[in-house]
Amino acid sequence: MANATNYKFDFFNVTFPSEYVAHVEINRPEKLNAFKEIMWLNLSAIFKKISHDPEVRAVVLTGAGDRAFTAGLDVQAASQGTLTSAAPLDPARKANSLRRHILDFQACITAVEQCEKPVLALLHGIAYGLALDLALACDIRHATRTTRFSVKEVDIGLAADIGTLSRLPHAVGNASFVKEVALSGREFGGDEALARGLVSRVYGCKEEGWEGVLGLAREIAGKSPVAVVGTKEIVNFSRGRTVEDGLRYTAVWNAGYLQTRDVKDAMLSGLEKKKAVFSKL
Amino acid sequence: MANATNYKFDFFNVTFPSEYVAHVEINRPEKLNAFKEIMWLNLSAIFKKISHDPEVRAVVLTGAGDRAFTAGLDVQAASQGTLTSAAPLDPARKANSLRRHILDFQACITAVEQCEKPVLALLHGIAYGLALDLALACDIRHATRTTRFSVKEVDIGLAADIGTLSRLPHAVGNASFVKEVALSGREFGGDEALARGLVSRVYGCKEEGWEGVLGLAREIAGKSPVAVVGTKEIVNFSRGRTVEDGLRYTAVWNAGYLQTRDVKDAMLSGLEKKKAVFSKL
Amino acid sequence: MANATNYKFDFFNVTFPSEYVAHVEINRPEKLNAFKEIMWLNLSAIFKKISHDPEVRAVVLTGAGDRAFTAGLDVQAASQGTLTSAAPLDPARKANSLRRHILDFQACITAVEQCEKPVLALLHGIAYGLALDLALACDIRHATRTTRFSVKEVDIGLAADIGTLSRLPHAVGNASFVKEVALSGREFGGDEALARGLVSRVYGCKEEGWEGVLGLAREIAGKSPVAVVGTKEIVNFSRGRTVEDGLRYTAVWNAGYLQTRDVKDAMLSGLEKKKAVFSKL
Amino acid sequence: MANATNYKFDFFNVTFPSEYVAHVEINRPEKLNAFKEIMWLNLSAIFKKISHDPEVRAVVLTGAGDRAFTAGLDVQAASQGTLTSAAPLDPARKANSLRRHILDFQACITAVEQCEKPVLALLHGIAYGLALDLALACDIRHATRTTRFSVKEVDIGLAADIGTLSRLPHAVGNASFVKEVALSGREFGGDEALARGLVSRVYGCKEEGWEGVLGLAREIAGKSPVAVVGTKEIVNFSRGRTVEDGLRYTAVWNAGYLQTRDVKDAMLSGLEKKKAVFSKL
Amino acid sequence: MANATNYKFDFFNVTFPSEYVAHVEINRPEKLNAFKEIMWLNLSAIFKKISHDPEVRAVVLTGAGDRAFTAGLDVQAASQGTLTSAAPLDPARKANSLRRHILDFQACITAVEQCEKPVLALLHGIAYGLALDLALACDIRHATRTTRFSVKEVDIGLAADIGTLSRLPHAVGNASFVKEVALSGREFGGDEALARGLVSRVYGCKEEGWEGVLGLAREIAGKSPVAVVGTKEIVNFSRGRTVEDGLRYTAVWNAGYLQTRDVKDAMLSGLEKKKAVFSKL
Amino acid sequence: MANATNYKFDFFNVTFPSEYVAHVEINRPEKLNAFKEIMWLNLSAIFKKISHDPEVRAVVLTGAGDRAFTAGLDVQAASQGTLTSAAPLDPARKANSLRRHILDFQACITAVEQCEKPVLALLHGIAYGLALDLALACDIRHATRTTRFSVKEVDIGLAADIGTLSRLPHAVGNASFVKEVALSGREFGGDEALARGLVSRVYGCKEEGWEGVLGLAREIAGKSPVAVVGTKEIVNFSRGRTVEDGLRYTAVWNAGYLQTRDVKDAMLSGLEKKKAVFSKL
Repeated sequence: MANATNYKFDFFNVTFPSEYVAHVEINRPEKLNAFKEIMWLNLSAIFKKISHDPEVRAVVLTGAGDRAFTAGLDVQAASQGTLTSAAPLDPARKANSLRRHILDFQACITAVEQCEKPVLALLHGIAYGLALDLALACDIRHATRTTRFSVKEVDIGLAADIGTLSRLPHAVGNASFVKEVALSGREFGGDEALARGLVSRVYGCKEEGWEGVLGLAREIAGKSPVAVVGTKEIVNFSRGRTVEDGLRYTAVWNAGYLQTRDVKDAMLSGLEKKKAVFSKL
Repeated sequence: MANATNYKFDFFNVTFPSEYVAHVEINRPEKLNAFKEIMWLNLSAIFKKISHDPEVRAVVLTGAGDRAFTAGLDVQAASQGTLTSAAPLDPARKANSLRRHILDFQACITAVEQCEKPVLALLHGIAYGLALDLALACDIRHATRTTRFSVKEVDIGLAADIGTLSRLPHAVGNASFVKEVALSGREFGGDEALARGLVSRVYGCKEEGWEGVLGLAREIAGKSPVAVVGTKEIVNFSRGRTVEDGLRYTAVWNAGYLQTRDVKDAMLSGLEKKKAVFSKL
Repeated sequence: MANATNYKFDFFNVTFPSEYVAHVEINRPEKLNAFKEIMWLNLSAIFKKISHDPEVRAVVLTGAGDRAFTAGLDVQAASQGTLTSAAPLDPARKANSLRRHILDFQACITAVEQCEKPVLALLHGIAYGLALDLALACDIRHATRTTRFSVKEVDIGLAADIGTLSRLPHAVGNASFVKEVALSGREFGGDEALARGLVSRVYGCKEEGWEGVLGLAREIAGKSPVAVVGTKEIVNFSRGRTVEDGLRYTAVWNAGYLQTRDVKDAMLSGLEKKKAVFSKL
Repeated sequence: MANATNYKFDFFNVTFPSEYVAHVEINRPEKLNAFKEIMWLNLSAIFKKISHDPEVRAVVLTGAGDRAFTAGLDVQAASQGTLTSAAPLDPARKANSLRRHILDFQACITAVEQCEKPVLALLHGIAYGLALDLALACDIRHATRTTRFSVKEVDIGLAADIGTLSRLPHAVGNASFVKEVALSGREFGGDEALARGLVSRVYGCKEEGWEGVLGLAREIAGKSPVAVVGTKEIVNFSRGRTVEDGLRYTAVWNAGYLQTRDVKDAMLSGLEKKKAVFSKL
Repeated sequence: MANATNYKFDFFNVTFPSEYVAHVEINRPEKLNAFKEIMWLNLSAIFKKISHDPEVRAVVLTGAGDRAFTAGLDVQAASQGTLTSAAPLDPARKANSLRRHILDFQACITAVEQCEKPVLALLHGIAYGLALDLALACDIRHATRTTRFSVKEVDIGLAADIGTLSRLPHAVGNASFVKEVALSGREFGGDEALARGLVSRVYGCKEEGWEGVLGLAREIAGKSPVAVVGTKEIVNFSRGRTVEDGLRYTAVWNAGYLQTRDVKDAMLSGLEKKKAVFSKL
Repeated sequence: MANATNYKFDFFNVTFPSEYVAHVEINRPEKLNAFKEIMWLNLSAIFKKISHDPEVRAVVLTGAGDRAFTAGLDVQAASQGTLTSAAPLDPARKANSLRRHILDFQACITAVEQCEKPVLALLHGIAYGLALDLALACDIRHATRTTRFSVKEVDIGLAADIGTLSRLPHAVGNASFVKEVALSGREFGGDEALARGLVSRVYGCKEEGWEGVLGLAREIAGKSPVAVVGTKEIVNFSRGRTVEDGLRYTAVWNAGYLQTRDVKDAMLSGLEKKKAVFSKL
C-alpha cells in the first residue's frame, strides 16, 4: 500500500481507499475548493509523485464537501497577484511576465495529464472555470446530475488559458456546444454534459458517484499496469495527430512493452478464471 | 449601434436587432435562398466588415422565409458556369482553372470562420449542401426539429469542396455518422443533428429558434469582447492541432490580451452584481 | 457484376448481393470468428482487390453466425506465435521483430481504411478487441442492441496496437468514454455505442441490421463513384489535420475530379427524376 | 505579351522584357526603395494579377537604382503609424489592432509566395529588414557580391514579423547562421549568403546579375507552365510537412495535371530537338 | 553471408562485396540504366528483402556502366503506358487511374527509404529525373565531380511526382537552389551538389567513388545493427516534424532498444580496443 | 550585474564577463568534461535560472581546459547506472524505467533550448556524443578548426536519444551528411562543420574563438531584450512547422510584444547615433 506520509500537501487529502487506488481530494471546502497558487503547485507535486509510485495504478480526484468540486480560481487571491498588478511595466515586459506565469500554471495542470496512471474525476456541485481545465486534464470524467458546469473565464474578461480551450475541442464531439458554453459561460448540468460528450457517466448524488468512480478505479487498478500505462499514453498521443502517426508511435511502444510477462499471466488467468497478479511498475 | 447603411448587399439583409448584435439574413426566399456566385462574394464582404466593426460583438445568421435556411448551390446558375464549361481546355489547364475557382469559393466561406466575432447559425427548413458548408464555418449551430439537413453534394456527382468534408470530422463526434450522411446524402432532422453532435440546440419552430438564438447572441454580446475574440480564436486554433501546440499558442495570446482592463471591470461588476460595460474592440 | 471467383479466400465469404455491392463475411463461426494470422492477411488481400474492382462501389462487412462479429484475436493461436516466443533473443532484437510484426498487422487492417470504396460494418453479438480495431478502419458502423463491445486488449496485458487506440479518439466525441472503455475493458452495448458516438445506427437484431446496412450500401452504390471515392478520401485526410490543410487538399482533389461527366449526368437525372447511370471507376 | 497598362501602380515599374517574363521593379530609389504602407498593398495587388495572367510564366523582382534592393520599412513613415500610436488604448485592444495590422501586412508579402508563377529576386546593394521578408517569399534568390544583407528588425526593438523568422529556418540549412544573423542584425555579403544557403547565385555587379536572373527567368518561362506551377506548389507544400504528406498531396495534384497535352508535346519536341510551344495557363 | 540466389531480379545485380554489405547495381547500361515499370517493381522487392535480411547491415546502390547512374524514366516505354493513354476516359476516371499509378510508383521508391538498413547511393555520369527521386530516398548520397544532375521532369511537362519535390526541401538547405534546379531543369555537377548540400562527398571518378562509398558502408556495417536501425528511423521520423515530437518518439524507441546487449559489448570492446561482434538483427 | 553567488553548481563555473552576458563553463577538465548525472541536472538548473534572470541577455557555453568541449557521457559512470542495470526486471518494466530516465535527461538538455536568452556554444577540442546533443540545443554554434566532432553514440551501441537525432535534421541542410556522421560516428573537423552547416564560424584556436563568441554575445546583449526573446522563440517555433503556422504565431506574439517602448527608443537612438539603453526583461 502506498505510503500516505509521502503525500502531505496543504489543501489536499491523499488517501488510498483500495489496493493500488489513490484518492486525491481538493480540500478547501470553506472556499468552495477555490484554487490559489500554492494549490496548483501542490496538485502538480502530488501527481508527479503518483506518476512514478509503484503502489498506485489508478487515481480518483474529487472535491471535499457537498457544495463544489471546485469553484475555480480564487478570484480574490488572484486579484492581488500577477493579473492585476499595477506595476508600471512596459506592456511587452508585462506580456513576458504573464507568459511565464501562464506557462507555469499550464504545466501544473498538465502534470495530471502526464501522470502515467489514469486519473478519474468525479465532478459534483459547482464546477466552474478551473474545474473544467482540471477535469479535462483527467482521463475519465463522471458527474452527478446536479453538477453545475461553467466555462466561467469568459465572465471575468479572459479567454481560459490553463487548458479548457485547447482540450475541450478534442474531448467533446459537438463543436457547436463547445463554442456555446465557452463563449457564453452558461451553466449546464450533468445530463447535458453526458449527452454532449463531456462526461461518460452521471450519478444521482455524490455518494453514488463515489461508489461508481471508485469501482471503476478498482477495475482499472486490477489490470496489468503495463497495459494501462500504454493505453493512456497512446490515446493521448493520438489525439490531435494523424492516424498514421498514431499507428507508428504505437508500433514502437509495443515493440518494448509487449515483451511483458503480463501477457502470459493475463492469458493464463483468463483461462483459469483467476485474478491475475501483476508485478509493480 | 452599427451603421446599417454600411451593409447594403444584394441578397442579404443586415440588421442590428439588439446592442452589439448583428443579424445577417440570406434573402432570396423565392429560390429557397439558393446561392449564386454574387451571393458568396457578398457574404464574404459582409463578414469581413463585421469582423472589424466595433459595434458588433455577436452575429446571427438565418435564411429568409419559411421554407429554407438555404437549398445550397443554385444548380441552374452553376450549370451555366465554370463547372460544366464546354471550352476545349486541356484537362490540366481546366484543373488549374477549377482549383482557382474552388480556392476563391472556399475563401468566401472561410471569411465567416475568420470573422473575429462569434457567428450563430439558425438552420430551419431545407438545409442542403452549401447550407452545411456555411453552417460549419459558423461557431454555433441551432436548428428546428423540422430542419431537413443533407450533405447534398454527393447527389450531384461531386465531393463537397467548400468546407463540409474538412470541417465535419472536427465538428461532430460520431465518425460513422459523418461518413453515413456524407456518402449517402440522406436527409436527417434536427433531433438527429442534436443527438449526433452537429447542433447544440433544437427548437420547435423558426420563431422559437429566433428567440433562442438571439438570446444567446445577446448573452455573448454582453461579455468582454476581449475574452470573446480570444475564446473563438483559441478554440479554432486548437482544433486539428495537438494540445501542446494549443497551450503554447494560448500562452502567447493571453500574454497580450490578459492586460485588458476588462478583467478588473468584470471582476468588480461580478462582486457588485452589476452588468459590466466594456469598451469597444 | 463482380466475379466471385476472384475472391476465394479461406475464412471469408465474398458475395455480391446487389449491383455494385460486395458482402465480405468473416467466416469462422465455430470459433466466434476469432482471427488467426492467415485471416488478416486474407482480409487485406480482399480489400485491396475490392479497392480497384470497378464492379464494387460499396462493401458490407459482417461476421458469420449468430454469436459474434468477431471475438478478436485467436488468443490460443497467438500464444503459440510471436508474442510469447521463448527464443533467447536480446530484448532489442525482440523489439525489432515485434515492431515488424505489428507494422505488418496494422497494414492489413489499414487496407480496409485505404480501400477506395466505402466499407460498412454490421457488428452483432460479441465484438471484442480486434473487432473494434477492424470496425474503426471501416467508414460506417452499425450494430444491434445486443452487440457486446469491449476493448478487450487491456485484459490480456497489452495496449491495443492494431488501430483502436489511434482511431477511437478520432471516431468518438466523448474522450472520457474512450478512455473509460479502453482502460477498463468493460463491455458496452449497442445503445451506449450509439449514444456515445461509436456507431450511427442500432437495430433490434442481426437480420434487421442486415436489411438496414444493405439498404444503405445500395444507396451509396447508386451514387456517382467519383463523388463517393472523393468523399471518403477527403474525410479521411481531414481527420487529425487542420481545416486549412483539409481545404487545400480538397481543392487539388476536385481540380481533377470535378471534370467528371457525372456532375452533368447527376444534375440532369435530378431534373428528370430518373436514376443516373454512372460509368465505372 | 502581357498588357503593361494593367500594371500601373505607384512605386513600382512593371515591364515585360521577354516573352512570358514580367519584371517588377521597386521604384523609390531616392529613399533606398524603403516601403511605406501603400507599397506593400500595391505589391500584393501586382502579384495577385500576375498569378492569373496567362501571359506571364516567370517574374523577376528587383530594386531601382544602384544603392539598394530595399532598405526595408520606411521607419519614418511607420513611426507616424500604428506601431507607435499614442492612443490611450487598453493594451489588449491595442494588441488586437496590432494583430490585425500584422496579419494584413503578412498577407501582402505572402501574395508573392502564393503567386502561381515563380518569382526570382535579384538582391543588390542594401537589403535590410523587409528586403529579407520579401526575398524569402520569392522562389529563387540571387545576389551580387556586394549586397549588404541584414535582418535589421532586431535593431529597432522588434522580432521580424512579416515572414523572415518563419521562412528563414526553412530556407537556409545552417540553423546557427539563421540565429546568428537574426539575433545580432549583423551585415553579411553575397558570398556568405551563398555559402550559408540563402541565395543560389552571386554575381559581380547588378548588371551582370540582371543578365543572369533574366536568363534563368527566360529558361523557366520556356517550360510547360503546367509543370512549373505544379513544381512551385508542391515544393511549397512539402516544406514544413512530412514526406508522407508531401507524397500524398503530389499524387492528387498530378492526378489532374498529368493529363496535360504538354507531356506529349514536351517529349516530342525533345525527340525532335525543337522548342516546344505550350498553350497558356 | 547473404544468399545471392535470393536476389535474382531482372535489371539488377545484387552482390555482397563485404561482410554485411549488399551492393545493388542498376543494370541496364545499354539504355543508360533508364527505368521501365518492371524495374521499379523489382527495386522495391529487393529492398523489402534486404530490410529484413539479417546478413545485411548496409547497402550500396550504383548504376552499371560508365555513363549513367540512371537517365531516369524510360520515356519511350512510358510514352506507351498510362501517362499518354488515349483511352476516352472521363477526366475524373483518368485522374483516379493516374493517382493509383503514382501512389504505386511512389511506394516502390519509398521502399528504399523504409528499408531498415542504411542505403548509400553513388551517383555518377548522368543522373536525371528518377535518379534524384531515387537518390533522395537513400540515406547517404555521394557523387563524382562529373556527375550530371538534373531534375529533368520539368522538361517533359510534369511536376516530379515520385519523391523529388517532397524530399528535396528536407534534404538540401538552400531553398533557392532547390527551386532553381527544380523549375529550370538545369544541369549541375558534383561540386555544386556538394556545396549546396545534396551530396556529402565528391570523388574524382566512379572507381574512386566505389572505394569511398564501400569503405563507408563497411564502417557502418561494423556498428551495432541495433544502433544503426534506430539512428536511421529516428532521423527519418524527425524530418518534417517538430523537435518535441522527435524527442518523444526517440524516448519510446530507446525504451525498448536500449535493452540490447550491444551497449555492453560495444563499451567493452571500446575499452579493450577490440572490434565488437554483434549478433544479427 | 548578475549575482554569481546564485550560480554555485558543482562542475560548472558561471561568471559574467561583460554586462548582460553570462559565461557557463563546463568544468571537469580532468575527465575531458565528460558528463555524469549530477552535471546535466545542474546544467538544467543553471539555464532555468538564467532564463528569468533580468541581468542576463546572452549566454556563452564553453568547456574548461584545452582538450575538450566535452567528451560526452561519462561512460564509466553510466555503465554503473540505469543503462546496464542487471536487475531481473520484466523487459516492459525496464522499458518504462528507461523511458522515464530518457525523458528526464532530454528535459535537462531542452532546458538550454527553452532558456529565453540566446545561448552561444564555443566548441573546441573533443566534442563527442553529448557534446552535439548539447550544442544543438544552443542557438548559435562556433568552433575551432581543430574541433573533433563525432556523433559517438552509434559506437556504443545505441541511437542518440538526448536530442542529436531530432535536432540535427533541422539544424543542418545536408541530409546526406547528417546520416553519414550519425550512422558512422566518423570524426569531422571545424571546417567541414562550417561547410556542411553545423556551425556558423570557425576560429584558429580556442582563445580566438573566445574573443569571437564573446564579441557576438555582447552584440546581442546590446539589443532590445524584447526583440531578442521574441526572435529566438519564433525561430524555434517555426522549425518543423509550416510557414502558415509560423506566421500566425508571430502575429499573436507581436500583438503583445510590439507594444514595447524599446521600438521608440531603438529608433531614436538609431537616429541620434547613440547606444540605446533598454530596461530589464
